[in-house]
Amino acid sequence: MQGIGDDCARIAPRAGHELAITTDTLVEGRHFLPDADPRKLGHKCLAVNLSDLAAAAATPRWFTLAITFPLVDEAWLDEFAGGLFALAERHGAELVGGDTTRGAVRSITIAALGEVPAGQGIGRGGARSGDDLWISGRLGGASLALVHPELAGPARRLHEPEPRVALGEKLRGLASAAIDVSDGLAGDLGHILERSGVGALVRYADIPKEEAFESLKNEKLERDCVLAGGDDYELLFTAPRQRRDSVRALADVTRIGEIVAERRLLIVDAAGNAVTHKASFDHFA
Amino acid sequence: MQGIGDDCARIAPRAGHELAITTDTLVEGRHFLPDADPRKLGHKCLAVNLSDLAAAAATPRWFTLAITFPLVDEAWLDEFAGGLFALAERHGAELVGGDTTRGAVRSITIAALGEVPAGQGIGRGGARSGDDLWISGRLGGASLALVHPELAGPARRLHEPEPRVALGEKLRGLASAAIDVSDGLAGDLGHILERSGVGALVRYADIPKEEAFESLKNEKLERDCVLAGGDDYELLFTAPRQRRDSVRALADVTRIGEIVAERRLLIVDAAGNAVTHKASFDHFA
Repeated sequence: MQGIGDDCARIAPRAGHELAITTDTLVEGRHFLPDADPRKLGHKCLAVNLSDLAAAAATPRWFTLAITFPLVDEAWLDEFAGGLFALAERHGAELVGGDTTRGAVRSITIAALGEVPAGQGIGRGGARSGDDLWISGRLGGASLALVHPELAGPARRLHEPEPRVALGEKLRGLASAAIDVSDGLAGDLGHILERSGVGALVRYADIPKEEAFESLKNEKLERDCVLAGGDDYELLFTAPRQRRDSVRALADVTRIGEIVAERRLLIVDAAGNAVTHKASFDHFA
Repeated sequence: MQGIGDDCARIAPRAGHELAITTDTLVEGRHFLPDADPRKLGHKCLAVNLSDLAAAAATPRWFTLAITFPLVDEAWLDEFAGGLFALAERHGAELVGGDTTRGAVRSITIAALGEVPAGQGIGRGGARSGDDLWISGRLGGASLALVHPELAGPARRLHEPEPRVALGEKLRGLASAAIDVSDGLAGDLGHILERSGVGALVRYADIPKEEAFESLKNEKLERDCVLAGGDDYELLFTAPRQRRDSVRALADVTRIGEIVAERRLLIVDAAGNAVTHKASFDHFA
């Protein structure tokens, strides 16, 4: 361990709180290109971890940073740190440990810790038949940017995602299950369904979509991006029907379907027909 | 995050305790060879992190694992996990988060968390003039194995280091400062001196050395390995003189010098002459 000045940093959650912990790695050539803007990359490395904390209804507090790179490039590192710490400060997350190593390929691993009042954390296993299914924001923008990098809005979604930290905190006591959409709606919803032992009906027309799809008029691309595109980092969550008004009062959330007892995921169009799409992102595809 | 089933695991330290956190990365080609024994590698990846916890007097509790590799190799992963979890179980450390990514070069990052009674953690900044300087075990074995890989004892020190967890816990209330010897005695002692604003006098003859040096009769190699060799993962610590008897009662610790007010590190032989050695391991050399 280097960079903090002790072998370990010491941290203490507030009384009555437990900690949520998560870790995510971004690897050059897999998650980002060699010429990726270092400031945006620094932002994104932390953002994907804060997004996991948000899905657990946790308030970001601390993170460790392990970074590997081939050569010392001070300018690159300054930019990377600039993007990283700007986001960290905005969410009150403090760097409490680091390791810098030399390796042939750039790689960044962050472990993030957040606080949640004891017993109020949210997982993937709490969805029950009859629950409403909700999504924050709009979907499909990040993966659209891979096909149309010239579009500013989608590019921002892909390279500088905003973790839904404030929303995650507000879901305490409201949501029965939650996940962040990192691998695509269908795949990530599948994780909730599997862990909860339930199924879901999703109305495709009700899913808020990246606005650029309206003018592109490419239905297949839209479906693939909206249902199977990763990296949007919106929150997908379920909540009991009797809490519908409370959830609706939250900013920027949309009801897109419901949880059903039968263990299958059905996504239907306005006519009630199943909507097909490519498989969700597989890290080992 | 993958492998645990939620975006975050939830953890809670016991009442009256704070957490120590650390992170370390091992990269193929830098910290281990492509053909490294995966079982030993799994052990070592966790061991270096538990060693940091030991230096902070913390009891291991949880860890996250981020692993990058080019191809799915089930046999390799099974062996790696075998070595990792054998050590984890021995020390009661639980895996609470993971991320598996594909990348051109193998890389493993672990973040480890340990518990320490509030206020009883040990850092690098507490050494005071007049304190005794202590080391656990014997030094130089791990780096000797790089030169003489045929020697079984040193090879074990290098590839399967045993973190000094039990000793670290016993240092609570005794040690004024501590660090684990990962980059070499001189360099790691330098970190304590710098943070504490003091200097040290070390008697080279008093340092317990890897036994193989006796028959090798290579004085320069011995000095370089003992003073500047990394990877031994022994604990180097300071303690007030009045606690000398209590410290001596601990198993396998040796007094090798003392802390002085003048801010310099002096290592002397039996005749009182300065002992020279190569510079400590530099990760960016």
